[in-house]
Amino acid sequence: MNGARALLDTLSANGITTCFANPGTSEMHFVAALDDVPAVRGVLCLFEGVATGAADGYARVTGSPAAALVHLGPGLANGWANLHNARRAHSPVVVVVGDHATYHAPLDAPLQSDIGAVASALEGWSRHCDVARDVARDTADAVAAAYGPPGRVATLVVAADASWGEVPVEASRVPRAPRARLAEPDDEMIRRAVTGLSRGRGAILLGGDALDADRLSLADAIARSTQSRLIVETFPAVMDRGRGVVHPERLIYLSEFALDQLRDLDTLVLIGAREPVGFFAYPQVPSRLAPDGCDVVPLAPEGVDSARALGALVDALGATRATPPDIETPTAPTGALTTASLARAVAATLPEDVIIADESNTGGVHLYGATAGSPHHRLVTLTGGAIGFGLPVAVGAALGSGQRVLALEADGSLLYTPQALWTMARENLDVTVVALSNRSYAILTLERQRVGAGSAGAASQRLLELDDPPLDLCALARGMGVPATLARSADELVVALRRSYATPGPSFIEARLPAGLS
Amino acid sequence: MNGARALLDTLSANGITTCFANPGTSEMHFVAALDDVPAVRGVLCLFEGVATGAADGYARVTGSPAAALVHLGPGLANGWANLHNARRAHSPVVVVVGDHATYHAPLDAPLQSDIGAVASALEGWSRHCDVARDVARDTADAVAAAYGPPGRVATLVVAADASWGEVPVEASRVPRAPRARLAEPDDEMIRRAVTGLSRGRGAILLGGDALDADRLSLADAIARSTQSRLIVETFPAVMDRGRGVVHPERLIYLSEFALDQLRDLDTLVLIGAREPVGFFAYPQVPSRLAPDGCDVVPLAPEGVDSARALGALVDALGATRATPPDIETPTAPTGALTTASLARAVAATLPEDVIIADESNTGGVHLYGATAGSPHHRLVTLTGGAIGFGLPVAVGAALGSGQRVLALEADGSLLYTPQALWTMARENLDVTVVALSNRSYAILTLERQRVGAGSAGAASQRLLELDDPPLDLCALARGMGVPATLARSADELVVALRRSYATPGPSFIEARLPAGLS
Repeated sequence: MNGARALLDTLSANGITTCFANPGTSEMHFVAALDDVPAVRGVLCLFEGVATGAADGYARVTGSPAAALVHLGPGLANGWANLHNARRAHSPVVVVVGDHATYHAPLDAPLQSDIGAVASALEGWSRHCDVARDVARDTADAVAAAYGPPGRVATLVVAADASWGEVPVEASRVPRAPRARLAEPDDEMIRRAVTGLSRGRGAILLGGDALDADRLSLADAIARSTQSRLIVETFPAVMDRGRGVVHPERLIYLSEFALDQLRDLDTLVLIGAREPVGFFAYPQVPSRLAPDGCDVVPLAPEGVDSARALGALVDALGATRATPPDIETPTAPTGALTTASLARAVAATLPEDVIIADESNTGGVHLYGATAGSPHHRLVTLTGGAIGFGLPVAVGAALGSGQRVLALEADGSLLYTPQALWTMARENLDVTVVALSNRSYAILTLERQRVGAGSAGAASQRLLELDDPPLDLCALARGMGVPATLARSADELVVALRRSYATPGPSFIEARLPAGLS
Repeated sequence: MNGARALLDTLSANGITTCFANPGTSEMHFVAALDDVPAVRGVLCLFEGVATGAADGYARVTGSPAAALVHLGPGLANGWANLHNARRAHSPVVVVVGDHATYHAPLDAPLQSDIGAVASALEGWSRHCDVARDVARDTADAVAAAYGPPGRVATLVVAADASWGEVPVEASRVPRAPRARLAEPDDEMIRRAVTGLSRGRGAILLGGDALDADRLSLADAIARSTQSRLIVETFPAVMDRGRGVVHPERLIYLSEFALDQLRDLDTLVLIGAREPVGFFAYPQVPSRLAPDGCDVVPLAPEGVDSARALGALVDALGATRATPPDIETPTAPTGALTTASLARAVAATLPEDVIIADESNTGGVHLYGATAGSPHHRLVTLTGGAIGFGLPVAVGAALGSGQRVLALEADGSLLYTPQALWTMARENLDVTVVALSNRSYAILTLERQRVGAGSAGAASQRLLELDDPPLDLCALARGMGVPATLARSADELVVALRRSYATPGPSFIEARLPAGLS
C-alpha cells in the first residue's frame, strides 16, 4: 500500500466519502487510488475555488467534512478565498495539497512555493507530511482537527514521495480520528445572561450552530419569557427558516443602521455568535455595533455547546416553547422585475426543503423578509465576505444533502467562480441558479458613498459597471452545459422557477433587474 | 490630499500608468482618486487572477510595472497564482491590497485575515502601510523593489484609514523610486565559461532577460566560435523569435528526454537561466538534469547583467556575429485539424510582430519548431506552472505593447481564468484567442503514466476528462462579449486566423482537436 492509498483509506474509514478535486501531477497517485477505494467519490472541479467552496457547502448542510484535493501552492491559493469563507462558517473541511517530492523541493522548481505560509493564513490546522508511514496518522489528525469543535479548515500537505512511497506494514492500520466534545457553558455566564435579560432591554444574538429550528425555538422561548429581542447574525453559515420555524430579526449589514438597531440594548447575549462589528470600517462610524454600556455576554462562543446554553437559560427562566405564528407568504408577482418582485417570486414558488445559497447581495435585499413564511428551507450565506462562494457552495450542498439548492447569485459575484456550473451539469445536481443581473457592482456604488469617497467621476464609475460589453449570462451557462432561460418580468421568473423545480438536474435563470442599485 | 491620492500620484510620477483593478470597499478611495489622476488608467477585471496576470503580461512586454489593485486577503489569494508566475518570470509588478482600517483589524471582522502571510509566500517585497503620511514613501519603495533587478512582485498593503487619511503637507512631496543597477558578471566565472566552452562538449543555457534578438545573436556568436550548443530554457518569460532571430534548441519539458538532451555536456554556462531541474520529481528519474561531472557555470544569474556577460565572452573568444539562416515556414495546411496541422496553420498565417502567449500545453507540442521561420514575434510562456495565465497575460501584453496578441490556450487551462475575455472585449484589445480543445487534461494522462500511478480505472480517468458535459467554448466567449468561431479543420482554422488578424479587437477561435493526447 502506498501513501496515497493510506490517505484515501483513512478518509473513508472516518466517514469522508466525497473528494472535490482539481488535481495535477503531484496528486496523480491520489487520483489513481480512487480506483481502489470506491467508497470515496472523486468530483472533478475545473477551478480550485469550486472544489473548496463545494467542500464548504457539503459541510454546512451535512455537518461532516468533505475533502478538497488541490495542486501545490497555486492550487491552494486558488482555493483560498472559499476556504476563508469555510473558516468563518466553522465548516469542517479537509484540504489535501500535493507537494513536490521532499528531495525535489530544495531545487526550487517552477511550481515550488511556501505552501505552509498560504495555509497558515487560514488559521485552522495544517501539517506537512513527508513520508508514507505518517500519511494515515496525519490524515486522521487532519480529520479530527477539521471536526473541532469548532469546525475548521485542516490542510494536509503531502509530499509526492510520501504519496507514492510504500507504507510499512506496521504503519498500515487505518486510524480513527478522535472526536473532541463541545465545552459546557460557563455557569457565571449563564447567571449573567439570565440577570441581564430579565432586567429588560435585552437581546439574544444567535449565530454559528445555534440556528437550527430546535435551538431557534429554545431561544424564542427565552426571548418571550424575558421580553427580549431575538436577532440573527447578518451572515449565517446555515439556518433553518420558513413555516414552523422561529423568525428572528436579522442584524443589518449597514453599520449605520445596525447601530440604530442595537442602540436601546442594555444586555446582548451571544449564542454561537461573536460580538457584532461592522463588516468594514467607515470614517466617523463606530466599528463596534453594541452601544456603550451594553453588557455583551459571550455565553456560547465557538466550541461551547449552544444547545446546553440555551437549555440552561430556558430552565433558569422557566420559559416555555410556543409554535411560531404563521407568516403570510406573498402571492406570485406579475409585472416588472425588481428586487421586490424577485423576492416575492422566490417566496411564492419555493418548494419544501430547499437549501438557499444566497449570494444575491444588493439585489437580494428583500429576500429575508419575503421568505419567512415560505415552506421550510435552509439558508446558507457568505460568512467570510469573499465573493464567488454561491455556486461552489451550491454544488457541495446539493451533493451532500440530495436536496434541491436554489443559488441566488449576483452577476458580479457569479463571475468569480462560474466554473461551478459545469460540475452541476456533470453531476446532474438539482440546482436552480438565479442570476440577479443588474450589470454593476451595485454594492460598491453604495460603499463608495459610505466611505465618503466623493462623487462619481467617469473613470471611477467605469470600475463599478459591468454593462460594457454586456455579459450574456445565459450563453455562459449553456457554454458550461447548463440549460438557461432569461426572465425579463416577474411573470417569466415565476414560470422559470416553477419549471426548474419540476425538472431534475441544474437549470439557470437570468433575472434581468433594473441596472445598478434599485 | 488623502493617502489614496498620494499613492496614485506616486505611481504616476514613477511611470506606472495602468492599474488592473478588481476593487472592493477598502479600495474605494483609490477608485475615487482615479478621477483626479487621469495619467493612471484603471482597467476593470472581473476576477483578481485576471488583474495580476495582466500586470505580469504588461511587465513582460514593456519591462515596466503595471499596478494590480485587489481587495483584502481573499483578493490577494485569488490573484496569487498569476503573481507566482510573475515571480518566476522576474516581472516587475506592484500589487496594491486594500486592508481594513488599523483600528478595525483587531475586531476580526469577517474579511479579516493574515494578508502578510499570503504575500510572504510570493517571496518578493511586501509592506503594510498604516498611516497616510507614509503612503507616498511606501509606494515609491514598492516601485523600486518591483524593478529590482531582478524584477519582482512588490505587495503594498494599505490600511483603509491610511488611504482616506489626510497626508500632512510636509509628507506630500512625490518621491522618485530609486533604480538599482544590474551587477557586473564575475571575472572568474567568465574565465571558467571561456575555458569550458573552448574545450568542446559545451552548451549555453539562456533564459530570463537574455532572450531578446540582440543577446540571442551574441550567444549564437559564442556558440559558433566554440562549437557549443545553444539551448533556451523550457518556459521563457519573453523571447524574440522568427525570421532574422537566432533559433536555439529548447530544453525539453519531459525530464526523461531532457536528461538525454544534456547527457553529453561537460560544460553548461547559464545566462539568465538557472541550473535545469525537472518540473516535477518522478520515481527513479533524477531531478537535476545536467549530467554528473558537467561543470555548471552560473555566469549571469538574476540581477547580473547578461548583455555584459555575453559581451565579455564574445570579446574573450573573438567571436563574430552572423545573420541567422532562413528557416522554411510551413505552407497553410488543409485537411484534418491535429496538433501538427494546428502548428502549421499558426506558423503559416502569423503576421509581423505578434506576441504569442502560449498556454497550449500538450496541444501545442509542435508550435516551437513550426514557428521558427515565421515573421518576427515574441513568445511569452508559463514560467511558474500555475495554469490560468494565458488569457490574463494576453490582456496585459496587448494593452502594454499595442501589438496583436495570439493567445494559444488549452481548454483545461482556459477554464481557470475565462473572465479575461470580458476585459479583452471591454478594452477592444487586439487579441486572437485560439482555444485548443481536446476535452481533457491530456497532460495529466501523460503525467499519471510518468509518475507510475498505474493504469487507468474509470474513477481516475473521469478526473482527467472534460467531455461530459461538453464545454461549448464559443458560447462561453460570446457570453463574455467576444465574437467566436469554431474551426473543425485545418482549412477553417487558417481562414479564422486570417480573418481575426484583419479585424480589430478580440476574436475567439475554438480549434477542435482529436480528443485527449494526440
